[in-house]
Parts: sequence; C-alpha cells; structure tokens
Amino acid sequence: MPWPAQISVRNEAFRIGVDFSISVSGAGGNDTRVRAAAQRTIARLARQTGLPLSLTNPADRSLTTEALMTVAVERRDHAGPQKLGDDESYALLISSDRIRLSADGPLGALRGFETFLQLVIPCVGDSPGFCAPQVEIRDQPRFPWRGLSLDVSRHFIPIDGIERTIDGLAAVKLNVLHWHLSDDQGFRVESKKYPKLQQLGSDGEYYTQAEVRDVVAYARDRGVRIVPEFDVPGHSTSWLAAYPNLASKPGPYHIVHSGADPMGAIDPTKDSTYNFLDGLFTEMAKLFPDEYFHIGGDEVSAREWTGQPRIKSFMKSHKLAGAKDLQAYFNKRLQKILAKRGKKMEGWDEILQADLPKNIMIQSWRGSKSLAEAASQGYTGILSAGYYLDLMQSSAQHYAVDPLSGDAGQLAPEEQARILGGEAAMWEELVTAETLDAKLWPRLAAIAERFWSPRTVTDVASMYARLDAVNRWLEWLGLTQRSNLELMRERLAANAPVGPLDAFASMLEPVKGYERHRTPYGASTPFNHLVDAIPPESDSARVFRDAVDSYLANPTEEAADALRAQLKAWSRAADDVRPLLESNSLLEEDLPIADSAQVLCKAGIEALSYAKSPAPSNWKQQTLEAVKDASKHNAALLIPFAPAVQKLVETAQ
Amino acid sequence: MPWPAQISVRNEAFRIGVDFSISVSGAGGNDTRVRAAAQRTIARLARQTGLPLSLTNPADRSLTTEALMTVAVERRDHAGPQKLGDDESYALLISSDRIRLSADGPLGALRGFETFLQLVIPCVGDSPGFCAPQVEIRDQPRFPWRGLSLDVSRHFIPIDGIERTIDGLAAVKLNVLHWHLSDDQGFRVESKKYPKLQQLGSDGEYYTQAEVRDVVAYARDRGVRIVPEFDVPGHSTSWLAAYPNLASKPGPYHIVHSGADPMGAIDPTKDSTYNFLDGLFTEMAKLFPDEYFHIGGDEVSAREWTGQPRIKSFMKSHKLAGAKDLQAYFNKRLQKILAKRGKKMEGWDEILQADLPKNIMIQSWRGSKSLAEAASQGYTGILSAGYYLDLMQSSAQHYAVDPLSGDAGQLAPEEQARILGGEAAMWEELVTAETLDAKLWPRLAAIAERFWSPRTVTDVASMYARLDAVNRWLEWLGLTQRSNLELMRERLAANAPVGPLDAFASMLEPVKGYERHRTPYGASTPFNHLVDAIPPESDSARVFRDAVDSYLANPTEEAADALRAQLKAWSRAADDVRPLLESNSLLEEDLPIADSAQVLCKAGIEALSYAKSPAPSNWKQQTLEAVKDASKHNAALLIPFAPAVQKLVETAQ
Repeated sequence: MPWPAQISVRNEAFRIGVDFSISVSGAGGNDTRVRAAAQRTIARLARQTGLPLSLTNPADRSLTTEALMTVAVERRDHAGPQKLGDDESYALLISSDRIRLSADGPLGALRGFETFLQLVIPCVGDSPGFCAPQVEIRDQPRFPWRGLSLDVSRHFIPIDGIERTIDGLAAVKLNVLHWHLSDDQGFRVESKKYPKLQQLGSDGEYYTQAEVRDVVAYARDRGVRIVPEFDVPGHSTSWLAAYPNLASKPGPYHIVHSGADPMGAIDPTKDSTYNFLDGLFTEMAKLFPDEYFHIGGDEVSAREWTGQPRIKSFMKSHKLAGAKDLQAYFNKRLQKILAKRGKKMEGWDEILQADLPKNIMIQSWRGSKSLAEAASQGYTGILSAGYYLDLMQSSAQHYAVDPLSGDAGQLAPEEQARILGGEAAMWEELVTAETLDAKLWPRLAAIAERFWSPRTVTDVASMYARLDAVNRWLEWLGLTQRSNLELMRERLAANAPVGPLDAFASMLEPVKGYERHRTPYGASTPFNHLVDAIPPESDSARVFRDAVDSYLANPTEEAADALRAQLKAWSRAADDVRPLLESNSLLEEDLPIADSAQVLCKAGIEALSYAKSPAPSNWKQQTLEAVKDASKHNAALLIPFAPAVQKLVETAQ
Repeated sequence: MPWPAQISVRNEAFRIGVDFSISVSGAGGNDTRVRAAAQRTIARLARQTGLPLSLTNPADRSLTTEALMTVAVERRDHAGPQKLGDDESYALLISSDRIRLSADGPLGALRGFETFLQLVIPCVGDSPGFCAPQVEIRDQPRFPWRGLSLDVSRHFIPIDGIERTIDGLAAVKLNVLHWHLSDDQGFRVESKKYPKLQQLGSDGEYYTQAEVRDVVAYARDRGVRIVPEFDVPGHSTSWLAAYPNLASKPGPYHIVHSGADPMGAIDPTKDSTYNFLDGLFTEMAKLFPDEYFHIGGDEVSAREWTGQPRIKSFMKSHKLAGAKDLQAYFNKRLQKILAKRGKKMEGWDEILQADLPKNIMIQSWRGSKSLAEAASQGYTGILSAGYYLDLMQSSAQHYAVDPLSGDAGQLAPEEQARILGGEAAMWEELVTAETLDAKLWPRLAAIAERFWSPRTVTDVASMYARLDAVNRWLEWLGLTQRSNLELMRERLAANAPVGPLDAFASMLEPVKGYERHRTPYGASTPFNHLVDAIPPESDSARVFRDAVDSYLANPTEEAADALRAQLKAWSRAADDVRPLLESNSLLEEDLPIADSAQVLCKAGIEALSYAKSPAPSNWKQQTLEAVKDASKHNAALLIPFAPAVQKLVETAQ
C-alpha cells in the first residue's frame, strides 16, 4: 500500500537469510540518500524479521557489489532540494534468488525500498524463515504532490514526533510535509531576527533553527519535502502578542489559550508590516529550502479591517472595495517579497485572485469547486477538503474522495493537469503529541493510496484488508498509533486489568466532524479521556455493518447466528466493563454509553429473532425510539454499529 | 517498590491539577541534578496522567518558590563523581494540599521523586482526576551498592537501550550500572590509543568515547554510577583478535562467533602486556570517572598457560605454583596500575587472594560461601549469585536470595558490614537489544527491593501485586518489556490475528538455567522464536500453582471450579492456536508444546473429577506418565503449570 501501478505475482518466494545484502550501482548509486536508504532497509529488515543482519560489519554488506539485492539508479540527482515532480518511478523484480530494484533517479529507489519491505512475510512451507513473494512491479505516482498538512501550533509536536511522522509519510510514499508552524495559539519556530515571535508568541515550546535544519535534512533523506506555512494575515494572534504594532486593532494580545481569548489580524496597510514580513520571510526562506512557501491566508475576519477607520480610509484611497480586495493587495505584496527570495507562493483558497502570477499554488480546504476554479484560471492546486483527519471520519470516506472528482472532473485535460495532488490535514485543537499517531494512522495510508495509485484502485474491502497489514507494518518504524492508545487505556484502568476496557473500547468511536469542538476546550484541557484513547474507526463495527448488509440481502440462518454472536459479545463486554466504569472517577462519564450499547445489542438480538416470527405490536416503534436514543453520543463517544441495528429493527417483521 | 523503610498512609489524597508545580530550596537546591530531576518529574507526571503540565512556560513553574511540591535539599553535593555510600535518604510527606520532599543530599531528592511518581493513581470519588495518597515516608537503602551487571559484548546494546535501562534502574532506586564492555565476542568501547580493539575486536558495533561520556553524564544525572568492566586475562579473545601479541598462545584469533571458535587468554608473563594494559586502563580510567574499575578475572582456563613451555618456565622462575598463582601475580600488577590512576580494583571471585590491598572489591558469582570468605579476610564484596536474570528464574526465586543469607549470615557484624549489596546480572548469549527489556523487567524491580528495603520485607504475594503495578508504571519511561514482546508475537503471527498466539503464549515459559544454551548458537542465530517473545514468568501459571496449593489444603467445590475453569480456558487456547501453528513455518516447532498443554489440561480436569469419586484403576499411573512426558520442554518452552497438575493427579483418589 499504496497499490502499485503494475504488478504481477508468482507463487514462489525469495527467502531472506542472514546473508542478505544490498549493492547500489549506476550514476545515481553514489547518492547519499540512496546509500543511507540501503542501510536503513537492512536495519528495518532486521527489525521486521528478527534476523541478525549486521549493519556495520567490516565487509559493510549493504554496499558490496555482489549482493542479493541490487539497486541500479540511472541518474544522479539534480543539485539543490527535492523538487515537485522529481522522478519517483521504479521497477522491482523479485525472483527466487535475486532482487533487482531499478530507478531512473534516487527518489525512485527510496520508493522501491518501501515496497520491498512491505512484501516481507513468513515463508509458506516447512522451513522457517521470512520470504518476499516473486513479483514484478513497475510503479510511479499518479500525482506529484502528495502530502500531509500538520498543525503544530494548537498543540506542539516535539521533534521526535515530527521525525516519526516523516518516517510514516515516506513509508506510504507521501512526499510533502506541510508544516503549519504558526497560528493564533503559537508561533513555533525560532526567529533570530524577531525573537519575540517564539518568546512571547509561544508557551515556550518551539523548534530551534538547528532543529528545523535537522528535520529538513531528515526529510530530504527520506524523499519528503518540507513546505513551511506561516499563516497571515489571519490566524496570527501569536505574532501580535509578540509585535503588537503588526496588529490591525490596538492590543494588547496574548497567545490564544481558549475560545474566550481575543484574536486579531495583521494590518495590511502599514509599510512596517511589509518590512517585518520581508525580514522574517527572508530569514525563513533560507531555513526552508523548498521552492514553495505557504502563507496561509485563510479565514480572515473582515471586521478586523472594516471596523478600523484608519484601515477603511486606506482601502478607500487605494480603491479597494472590501476586505477581500485588501487581502488581495496584501497577497500581491507578499508574492513579490517571496519571489525576490526565489519562492513560489502557496496559500489556501482565499488567496485566489485573477492578477497573481500563475506559478502560485492553491490548497483547497473548500472543495472541488474552488479547486476547479483555480485550475481553470491557470493556477496549480491541490485538494485538502475531504482529507481532514481531525474530523474522525473513516478511511473509506477519505478513500472515496478523488482530487479529480466533482467540479474538477469536468475540467479539460490541460486544466486537470494543474491539479497536482492533495494533502491530508491534521488540525490539533483536540490532538496532542500523545495521540497524534493514532489520529494520523492508519487512515493516512488510505489517503496516500488515493494520491499514488491509479484512479481505478477503489476496492474498499481490499483497501481495509491491506490497511490492517500496513498498520501493523508501520509499528516497526516506531509509530505509536496502537501502543500509545493501549497505554492510555491502561492509565484509565489504573490498577485494574485493562481487558474489559479494551473490549468495550473496541465497539466505540469518537464523535465526528466538529461535534466535539462545541465543548469548550483550551490549552489546559486534558486529552486523557476514553474518547482520546480509542482509534477513529472501530473495525468490529465496520465488519458488523457490512455483515448486516449482506444478511439483509441474503438472510441465511448462518449469517443471523454470526450477527447474534457479535451482539452478544458486545453486550457482555458492556456488562463486564461496568464495575470499572462505576469505580473509577475518570471513567464514570462513560456509563451512559455502556447503557446505550446494551440497549442496541438487545434491540439487534430481538430484531434477529423477529426476522421470521412477527414481533409484538408496538415493538418496532418502541424499539426504534430506543435505538434512536441510544444512537446519541455521550462523553464524545458514539456507537458506530447503531445504524446497522436500526436497519435490523426496521426490516424485522 | 522498593517498599520504603518507614511508611504511614492516611485515607485521603492530594489531587494533581494542571497547576502542579515544584520548587527546590536549601543549600543543595541549586544542584543541577535536583533541578533536572524536578523538570523530569513534571514531564513524567504529564505522561502518567495525560494532564497538560507545561514544561517550559515563561513562569518555569517547576522552579517557582511557591509551589505545591516543595523540595528541600540540606547539603550541596561533594565535588566529583557520585561515590559509594553517598547519602540517599529522604522523607516524603503528602498532605491534602501540599507535598514536601526533604533530603540531606541531592541523591535523596532523586529517590524521593521516584517514590512520589509511583504513588500517583486515579482519584477515588466523584471528581475525575489523578491523586497521590496522603503518606508519610522516611526512607533509606539497606545496602549502598545496588546494581545491574550488563553484558554488551555477546550481543551489542545500542545507546538508547543503555539509557532506557538507566532510566529503569533509577526508577527502582538501583544505583550502579556495571557495564561489561569486553568479552570474547566483542570489545565494545572505542580506544583512541589502541583503535584495533574496536576495529578488529568487534563486529563494528561499539560505543564511541563521546557516547560513553554521554552515558556517564546521563547516569550521573539520575543518581546511577557507571562501573566499567574490562574482563582480563580470560574472556579476552576479542583483544587477541586485535593485538595477537597479547595472547598466551600464537594466534590467529578472531572474535568469537559461536562455540566452535577458538578462545584465548592474555599472557601475564610479558612486560609488553602490562605496558598495554597501563596504556589502555589509563585511557579508560579517564573516560569512566567512577572510583571502581572492574577487571573481571573470571573463568581463566589454566591450560592456556600451563600448556605453554615459555609461560611454564616463567612460573617456575617466579616461584608461581600454578595458574591460580600466576593470575594472582597478574592481578597484583594490575592493581598497582589502577591504584596509580586513583582506582579501586573490582573483580569476580577468582581475584580473591590474601596479599591484595583491602580496598579491592569482590563480586561473587559463586555464591555466599565465596563472598563470606572475602568478607572474613577483610575485603568488601557484593553478591551476584542468585540474581542471574539470564537464567529465566522467577522473581520469587531472586527475591528469596539475601546478600546476608547462607555463609554470609554466619559472619560477625563487622564482617557483614563489608558486604555492600548486590548486583543482578544479565549475560547476553541469548538476549538481544530487542528482548533486553523483557528479560530485565519487571524481575529486576523485585531484586531492587531486596537490596533497598528492610530485610523483613519478604511477603511474596505483596511483592507480586506491587511488581505488576510497577511493570506498568515503568512503561511510562519508555521501557519496552511488554510492547516489544507484543510486536514479536505479531511478527510471528504475521497477517493472522495475534489473539490466539497471545493466549497460548500466556501459559508458557522459557526453559530455565543453561538448558537452552545447549543448543548451538552464535552471532548469526536469530532470536525471533516464540520462546523469545514471551516473558520469563507466566502470571497465570503462578496464580494457578498457588490456587492448587490452596485447594489441596482446603478442597472446596468453589476452588475446584475455578481450577477447572482455568484448565478449560488453557485447553481452549491450545486448541485455538493450532491452525496458526500448523500454517506458519515459524511456529510449527511449537506444535508439540500445544499437544503437551492439552494433555496436562485433560489430566488436571480428570484429577479434579476424581477428587471425590475414585479413578479407574491404572488411571493414576498412566496419567502420571503422560504428565511427566508433557512436562518436558520443546522448542525451549515449558509449561509451568505442569507441577501443579502433577500434584492434582497425585492426590486424586
């Protein structure tokens, strides 16, 4: 995963032995990234198999020329940072005694190593060991821009979390980390020119420039571009806390801790604003070598400007009809500043306006319509709407969104060609460093497949089966999407056995969309509740929903038994967890959802029994009401098999 | 854990809020270790509770003077490295609104922080949150030398594993990491003076001097001394691979990869040997600041010397009667070299001889007799026999061993005072970086309690109950004793659900003692089998054994039902795992042990049914034979409830 462009599999295998070795050749064979990736591949293979594949023995087996895995890289890489559109294609041939990976450029080799590592599984047959199936793969991405937009302002993510995330991106062949470094809640990178940005514009948690350089190098080594975002002129209260002169309205400002705190916007009418931005962006343009530079530009409140007489008079004298025009004026000046530093400007939908140069890039949070509009006007763009991982939607929902669907699907081919891919987005209002991995993975791998694989790869059942394997595979990289949630549930269970809580948790999901955001939250809100300690999707609920659909299409006795068994198991789990919920101050809030689970299980079991013999009068109506009631969320939790139970009740006699 | 010297508990609690803060005062309050430990305590508390306790906000709350936790440290620390016997006592008073930690010196504060962190659990009552019970603790260690001897030669442990281990040692109040840095299989530290030691004397995996300095500083920060061991004149084949002139017999030598490889010993007759050792130990004495320096000295093969005419004639001319005397001669010269560098010499039992200065130290692997002999001759000593964690014994077995038991118990008080404590030992023939934590923890915490707590603390049931809690608590430090084994079992199960394998694994234990060492192994042996993926002790088997003893003492129907239920559950688990074992080349070797489990469960269930009604003739004899057969190990696994089943069968009618 992502599924390759072309693959053929034979029913034999290459056996991984302790003599496994990699050699690298070709003009690109001296690329430091390829050589480092070969070393990492050996180390990861050792972890995945438990085989003692020595990394550093005197023979340095990973770089011997007569190796079991040969890697041929045709071309040396261009100088400078990785660029949009750099060749990522590769071919991987595994026969019974040799593995051959070939690529035009270094990036292709990196992608091919990941494919190889995913293929290693226990051998079939008598002799114990690990094997890779014999395959022939030719692969390249569908879209050149495949990213994750990661907010580190609302909750800070330490460097190890960033690097772990980059490992994960590279593993599923994503190639952009869009680093949302500033927002109302914090400015997260050290400026030497304007040090108050991190000193007063953060809670003390920010990246030093040395750390940023490390991350950029770390990402480059793994074929991932780092695109920084400094969100202006809105979402910038943290800047105003540091430099109040930048503000449209007089302050004072402080970094936003909760919804009650005042927010501001940068003043686009003062020359001093542009001097400041020139200074800062010049500094940051050096720190972040990527050719793209993201200036945000989203969600500016017009009142911040139109409410100020001074700004209104500026708009009038400059013939700017409204806030939108004023922002356009601002963007144009910013674009010139960035162009001077060799950067292409990127921004959210709001920066789209007819008179900017065509090399700017639009990231669409609004959706296909907005993206298609940009493309039809000659701008390049990427899609993020539909890929918001913080909304706790299912992998299937994200998987169904195609960057070229909707309005974009109606564009002419040369216009469609301007849609360069997409980015998943993770906003951190309700996510912390502890839960980040669980909110990203494995769903991000499904989105990665959407961006990489041919458009025709859309089988949801296959996607889920492979996602499950990839989810486990990613743990060898040190991702914590499962282990951290386990620890968090143990923390909740305290000294009691965690088994009953795990079983109960497995039937629940967090509420969706912005529902949970309605409860006031802020910098001092603990995210240590049960809802924080579960994955966004319940596998067993998904399987059950599918099974109900199959049953309703073909109501066999066997299918009914299986559904009944699952409902009974859930009912038992909701029962077994009750003493823990009752005795533990942290879990008491989850009692109502346990009650609801019981109601739903009972309704489902009754409905199955009334599939053949008629139910008592009033049963259906009363039960549907009970199901509706039990489908409500509690403690930000919902029961995702409720709709399937409702179907069972509705179709009962 | 370890249980404190004095404790009284009240039935109320201190509630941990997001305003939690620590202040440090007293002459020792400026100690960098205490201040760093206060910061770490806040960070660890945040992890343990999920509360957003900001570490680095401008107010730097951990160091404010009006804090909820006040830490008073009476004395500033002495200059130089931590010393044997440095004061570790502390008092911890938790009331409903304040926490007061006081200590004479910095080390006591460090120990007190660990005690506090262990006490934090969910509050009892309505309002959700985390609390610490109201306690008054006065605590100090029973022994001043409490360590772990860690072999990193046979399998290399990377720096992160060493640092993680130091975190664990500090958490359970151990204060020495004895770093076994060289052996036949590898010399693991960089020498700038004799670089071939790491270049030819290792497989390329060794610690650079910069890394060693980091580890020493890391350990010092946590109140842990680092005592290096360079094992001579035996266990030194890796040295001879690098510098063959050191050898007693002509080479060539190479580092030992397996039992088939030749081993050698250093030649104690040449002046060049002492010049070399003087050079190396002078270099290493600077790198390792501790006052003790361990020279090993164990298990020298006399044949290495007595078989060499040149060495024999040296012995004759120096009036050395045998190999033992020659080693004594060697040790005396070494002791002078070390004394010149300000070091006290430490070694295993074999270095004990009457004419060495009394400030040397004996580490006893042979047992109490040998240790008592050393103490009665005026030498200081520590006990390691009985604490070998690589032998896969139970926590209870180690817990029962007291440094002052056996012959040492017969010594006069002033002789006993020379027994300074003990060290657990982990030899790495069959342990890798992946499994290290699981082989150390939680058993090492039980040994730590033996070394720290009053001698009267011996209740095994209480120990196990607290060990279970500590085992979970240690995970917040990043120790991997549970998570790595889970991953390893998932690796074995490959794409099949791991549940059945987990259930099966929970009833098994690795074979004990040196049984598994009999199967040839070496540097290329993979340690990725089921036996590597389970903890040394099965909790459920231990509980069952205890339950059988209770039942036999008081055979109630209820107790019989509980035993029967456990046997049925195990039987079902052994059944459920069978398809996985049969279909997976890595697990096939475990089929016989699944068969044995079935036999034992059946025998136990039958025996319970014959507790009242008599068994058929021959049943007992036939069943005992079957039980005996099923008690044998397979694939290095054994079934630890077998003895309990045997008891049931033996006592059946």
